[in-house]
Amino acid sequence: MAARLKRTPDGLVPAIAQQYDTGEVLMLGWMDDEALHRTLTTGRCTYWSRSRGEYWVKGDTSGHVQYVKSVALDCDGDTVLVKVDQVGAACHTGDRTCFDAGELPLGGPADGREDGPA
Amino acid sequence: MAARLKRTPDGLVPAIAQQYDTGEVLMLGWMDDEALHRTLTTGRCTYWSRSRGEYWVKGDTSGHVQYVKSVALDCDGDTVLVKVDQVGAACHTGDRTCFDAGELPLGGPADGREDGPA
Repeated sequence: MAARLKRTPDGLVPAIAQQYDTGEVLMLGWMDDEALHRTLTTGRCTYWSRSRGEYWVKGDTSGHVQYVKSVALDCDGDTVLVKVDQVGAACHTGDRTCFDAGELPLGGPADGREDGPA
Repeated sequence: MAARLKRTPDGLVPAIAQQYDTGEVLMLGWMDDEALHRTLTTGRCTYWSRSRGEYWVKGDTSGHVQYVKSVALDCDGDTVLVKVDQVGAACHTGDRTCFDAGELPLGGPADGREDGPA
């Protein structure tokens, strides 16, 4: 399986954590071979922390555990999708997901709109 | 906004495409600042192809367009979540999502199971 993984230059693949029943995208972490192995075999999501340079079992500090329901590689073997049952907040800010506070505005400059006022 | 982005060593951030109504995680692509700008301003998902080294408007070749519904950065500014309306298959294999065919087996070695046979 390790041979199927294609990694970024730092040897990692992105791992998407999704709440298994609601479909919420909770967060994105990073895994190397060992983190993926631990995730598959322990039932707990384990990531590699790029900032701390260490393995990180989600919830060990916060209590906000991710119980693994299923794991899939994508068609190119360079991304992992982990369906989990998330206890509490996935985000360290206390938000349910890491994307709750980050919505960006859509749309181009007003004068570029074909349907704008003359 | 560009200042908020934290990139991998190759200058990119992962972008998760999710079907806006069903919640399916469709695929993961990569964006640089310009791809994110085009995604926000054109209404069509635009990625950076790591293998081809060029921008790539999803659906331009396949017809399997992703119409952008919303875009959010995560709490650390290093991941993008794009909610889209996906036309047809998201995966180049013809599957609806890039994760449909890639499920991995869970569980450790059988002799490590506490609930296994004696």
